Amino acid sequence: MIIDRLFDAVKQRGPVCVGLDTSLQLLPASLLAKLPPAQAALAFNQEVIDATVDVCACFKVQIAHYEAMGVDGLSCYRDTIAYAHDKGALVIGDVKRGDIASTGEMYARAHMDGEFATDMITVNPYMGWDAISPYLPYLERGDKGIFVLIRTSNPSAQDFQEINCGDRSLFLRVASKVAEWGKNYIGDCGYSAIGGVVGATGPEQLATVRSEFPLVFFLVPGYGAQGGGGKDVAPAFRDRNGAVVNASRSIIGAYRGQPDGDRRYTHYARTAAFTMREDITQWQER
Amino acid sequence: MIIDRLFDAVKQRGPVCVGLDTSLQLLPASLLAKLPPAQAALAFNQEVIDATVDVCACFKVQIAHYEAMGVDGLSCYRDTIAYAHDKGALVIGDVKRGDIASTGEMYARAHMDGEFATDMITVNPYMGWDAISPYLPYLERGDKGIFVLIRTSNPSAQDFQEINCGDRSLFLRVASKVAEWGKNYIGDCGYSAIGGVVGATGPEQLATVRSEFPLVFFLVPGYGAQGGGGKDVAPAFRDRNGAVVNASRSIIGAYRGQPDGDRRYTHYARTAAFTMREDITQWQER
Repeated sequence: MIIDRLFDAVKQRGPVCVGLDTSLQLLPASLLAKLPPAQAALAFNQEVIDATVDVCACFKVQIAHYEAMGVDGLSCYRDTIAYAHDKGALVIGDVKRGDIASTGEMYARAHMDGEFATDMITVNPYMGWDAISPYLPYLERGDKGIFVLIRTSNPSAQDFQEINCGDRSLFLRVASKVAEWGKNYIGDCGYSAIGGVVGATGPEQLATVRSEFPLVFFLVPGYGAQGGGGKDVAPAFRDRNGAVVNASRSIIGAYRGQPDGDRRYTHYARTAAFTMREDITQWQER
Repeated sequence: MIIDRLFDAVKQRGPVCVGLDTSLQLLPASLLAKLPPAQAALAFNQEVIDATVDVCACFKVQIAHYEAMGVDGLSCYRDTIAYAHDKGALVIGDVKRGDIASTGEMYARAHMDGEFATDMITVNPYMGWDAISPYLPYLERGDKGIFVLIRTSNPSAQDFQEINCGDRSLFLRVASKVAEWGKNYIGDCGYSAIGGVVGATGPEQLATVRSEFPLVFFLVPGYGAQGGGGKDVAPAFRDRNGAVVNASRSIIGAYRGQPDGDRRYTHYARTAAFTMREDITQWQER
């Protein structure tokens, strides 16, 4: 099952998820000078994948940055995924889709079977079970998984996620459903192919969901540029596994401000991923 | 402002929103026989737009169906929007995006300024204000708007949207925020460019949000194939305006099962849109 592959990847290469939020603003001038934007983004992604594939568990490709470049950008998204797969890497499509019935089925087809197919995608729970069930045929196939948004890393996550719903916050109600939905898709590693997104900016929430929902594998955003550090994400783990921690700008944009950054951006990306891995693992129980 | 244009469109041509959820399964065999899939979908959309533009307020293009066709499908999505705009029609991009910070800005750029720009898009509120604020620069420009998911039309909407949050359901908390966020973007018509999605399958919810939040314009899904009828959507309106009601399969797929459907699909689409308009307006106070 896909979740076993992710678990093994964390075991072998650590819990870093390299976020390919490749906007034009983040691309080195040297690449933009010789290639059209979407091609420059693809070349950049390929080089970053090569430079970090052995120090990360997986890649996360944030589709918004590619949608902003139009059809050419989506070709780049597709080709980036294909390149990472060629390198044997796992890819999370950060699409945060959420829709129902025939529309949900179309999203599932697009992101689990079609040109944009990744290994796992992020899903928004607001519409409930009907927005999750379209993915089940692919989960049952064994090679796909989803991460449902539980507690996101942004300040206004509290607008709704922290609302008190009788006995507990909304995000805990969502986490509870995620755990329930995931029971039929548990791999040999003990985690479910239905995972959850829980931000690094709320260490106490991470600790709560980790202890209450031991079967839920976490995708943890918010490390680095958004403020979370190695200590903040430590509660996400159990026996040094059970979570991947995403960083994007702090890895792929690490070259910025360096005198030789425009030439050696892959070096800085690799170094940043390596340093991040150290920063996280130093806080884990051994 | 965009909301005034939508208000005028409803006034002039009635509240029907024609949903272009154009999946391959819905395309007439005659078109699929002579064109590649994505081109057949575009040709179909163009013909349906021509056949219904004078009996509907706007079109809603559901991007999932195009994503499922990959990069070619997204070219079709882009070209469908451009065609509708050429005909002077308003277009809602049903993308249900929801993300924050730089990622939210990229979605905003993609769907309000880039190749995929429509007039209004649907937005998911789970991440709170941070998932709304990226669209404000475009709303301030005056020519764009958003519809925030409040109460969707699917059965499991109740999983979270109906959760009791102290004094009221989550969807009413969301509606309350939508109304608050929208106060700075009110057009001459009295409605805000920050509207809300409220399904036709919950007439009592429609009545509640209509009376409590008079500034919020509604996009109402769930009519037709999903079970809602003219009577069910009546509570969405005030003085025969303030809402558009979407139907997709029951309009663009109306030709199916008709002996001459494969040849006269535009006739059946037009007739279905016309009949739907009658069905809705007969229940409105005059």
